[in-house]
Amino acid sequence: MVDSGEGPMHIDLGRMQRRLAALTTPALGGTPGGGMHRLALTDTDRDARDLFVAWLREEGLIPRIDDLGNIYGRRAGTGPDLPPVLVGSHLDTVPGGGRFDGILGIVAALEVASALREASVTTRHPLDVVNWTNEEGARFTPAMLASGGFVGAFARDWIDARVDRDGLTFGAELTRIGYRGDELARPGTIAASLELHIEQGPILEASGETVGIVEGVVGIRWCRVTVHGQSAHAGPTPMADRRDALVAAARMIVAARDLARARGDINATVGQLTPEPEVINVIPPLVTFSLDLRGREDAALDAFLAHELRALFDTIAAEERVTYDLTIEWAVPPTPFAAAILDRAEILCAERGYRARHLWAGAGHDSQYLARIAPAAMLFVPTIGGLSHCETEDAPWPAIAEATDILLTLALELANG
Amino acid sequence: MVDSGEGPMHIDLGRMQRRLAALTTPALGGTPGGGMHRLALTDTDRDARDLFVAWLREEGLIPRIDDLGNIYGRRAGTGPDLPPVLVGSHLDTVPGGGRFDGILGIVAALEVASALREASVTTRHPLDVVNWTNEEGARFTPAMLASGGFVGAFARDWIDARVDRDGLTFGAELTRIGYRGDELARPGTIAASLELHIEQGPILEASGETVGIVEGVVGIRWCRVTVHGQSAHAGPTPMADRRDALVAAARMIVAARDLARARGDINATVGQLTPEPEVINVIPPLVTFSLDLRGREDAALDAFLAHELRALFDTIAAEERVTYDLTIEWAVPPTPFAAAILDRAEILCAERGYRARHLWAGAGHDSQYLARIAPAAMLFVPTIGGLSHCETEDAPWPAIAEATDILLTLALELANG
Repeated sequence: MVDSGEGPMHIDLGRMQRRLAALTTPALGGTPGGGMHRLALTDTDRDARDLFVAWLREEGLIPRIDDLGNIYGRRAGTGPDLPPVLVGSHLDTVPGGGRFDGILGIVAALEVASALREASVTTRHPLDVVNWTNEEGARFTPAMLASGGFVGAFARDWIDARVDRDGLTFGAELTRIGYRGDELARPGTIAASLELHIEQGPILEASGETVGIVEGVVGIRWCRVTVHGQSAHAGPTPMADRRDALVAAARMIVAARDLARARGDINATVGQLTPEPEVINVIPPLVTFSLDLRGREDAALDAFLAHELRALFDTIAAEERVTYDLTIEWAVPPTPFAAAILDRAEILCAERGYRARHLWAGAGHDSQYLARIAPAAMLFVPTIGGLSHCETEDAPWPAIAEATDILLTLALELANG
Repeated sequence: MVDSGEGPMHIDLGRMQRRLAALTTPALGGTPGGGMHRLALTDTDRDARDLFVAWLREEGLIPRIDDLGNIYGRRAGTGPDLPPVLVGSHLDTVPGGGRFDGILGIVAALEVASALREASVTTRHPLDVVNWTNEEGARFTPAMLASGGFVGAFARDWIDARVDRDGLTFGAELTRIGYRGDELARPGTIAASLELHIEQGPILEASGETVGIVEGVVGIRWCRVTVHGQSAHAGPTPMADRRDALVAAARMIVAARDLARARGDINATVGQLTPEPEVINVIPPLVTFSLDLRGREDAALDAFLAHELRALFDTIAAEERVTYDLTIEWAVPPTPFAAAILDRAEILCAERGYRARHLWAGAGHDSQYLARIAPAAMLFVPTIGGLSHCETEDAPWPAIAEATDILLTLALELANG
């Protein structure tokens, strides 16, 4: 229960649960295992959008669809020429993903609008409840394609030409499902942006805290490491005479993990590895692996790559008599969120007795693009077991209630500020 | 120059070089890079067989083709009912292989027949110059399919039904290229079997020795290791909270290499590794890798697998909080060769001043099947850089001359003994 000054405002947790359930039925991509499979711009994405738009109309919010398929449900303010406050997230999921990633943020944004309506609150700024297209990047790379397009990070033609694995383009698929709107539907200047999301990690759950105040999104380096050894037959080649690219790569993977764990401020992950020729009795002459590095500071990431990790890899390559190349294929600087909003969130949590903590987002979110053009912030809720992008993805509803309550107050204050 | 008792016998190195060149022309699978690409039962294999059969006829050897496509060129002995001595190897190669593996053994076997003819030697036992079908197993698995069939390790129907990657069967392809003979063409009982082959390893070259007296073929274990961790997002999952199947697998690969190198009597190789889902920003929950183990003693291989390696893998799995399965998919015991032949080879080398050494074959050869039914032996020649199954595969001709000289005398003595 929040005293807004205009009247009592409250979150209806049952309504949120019903909406989340309705957005995750089998017809909309719900899986038998309790997860979600709803790739961007598929038929299930269209059907989920249709339901979202129907709810916007029920709430009295005027839907607009822009040329990237982003959907905005406008709640008018008293100052019609003032820029809007955006509250939103995304309806698309990864293959075999969960019911909370993105979808919970949509439900929370709707809940903000519902609570304001029920309290008969009118704000100065308008408020847009938003669904961003193709956040996951699971169908069309890169991730956060349409929020990136919204802030000008990507050109419309380039976005339209993105191709999925079946050769279908973003543009053609957007038109096919009937969600190609008009560029004029974009809100243009915005006053602020808010997003509620599951943490996708174990930190809040482990500490027993319910509201995560997200300081920003970490910087990312995506690297490709190629190790060159010498092909030889597994049988007649003595162990001491080998130049085994896979053994060298294995040592590099362990070294990167150990170094990152020792530092504490960088996450290092190898998700892809391919030995060649991949024959059981041939010592691999060539191994390629990915390296995903994330950290809060560009300087730390750069030092890690240019000096510490490089020194370890050089030593391993010399000892194993192999050579290697490390190329940086993608680099994103850290994105800090708006300090004023974060400070206000902390005060609100303290006033209401909610256990809150500051933390960094390790994964990308649409909000990091929105932070380029406006004050932006995110709130996290705990994630059971820290697990996301899987069918068992789950989040505790009492924590969701508290975080949505903070989201509501922040949206109200920003829309009146 | 060998004094056979019947007259002077000698190896014609120029003829061997010309025959090797003729068997490795571009028309017969020679590659622009100087290697060979002649998979079993292809058109190039047929054309190489045609040339081999033509040479057999030129030498006055009567060709016979059995129901597995093995080709035997018979040189009659004075005792027509005595079992033959077999000298041979294989004409097929791996993709992108070299000019010596198998082909040199065919050329050396032909040279034995040519030298005996030129010296007008008649032996007691008949002699068969042999080409074994599909030794490499690069097209139809397993390797040594037709020598295995010859000794009864595989049934004819099973061999015929082996399928290549394009869905073509061994039987249909054998018939298509016109090399389906009759089971009656098989020699049946044999007196002895000899094979000359490149070492495919660095031992002879490193020691400066020219003739390798092969004590036997190592035993093999092919294992599959599956590591089960926990999928999680690379960004929000702290390093200390991970159950990363790829990091655990990497530690196991390094541990297996280090343990094998420390023991000295076992070779351990990982040639195949597949992480899943193989997404750059997902901590792999599942990794599968192959493990090829070879050693001279079954007891050592079994102890390595059941105790030493298992203990290391258990420790790694516990530390990384993953589980793993290790299954043995294929096990071959070591095959010792006939001691009497090896002893005689050592004496002959000493008499002629050839630098010889005993060593074990790390790779499989047709001779290991022949050893099941008769005294069998192999001689190795050095391999430049220890490299085989590659286009740069090469062997020094002076050493080939010495090893073929020993092969000739052994064949003569066995055929008279």
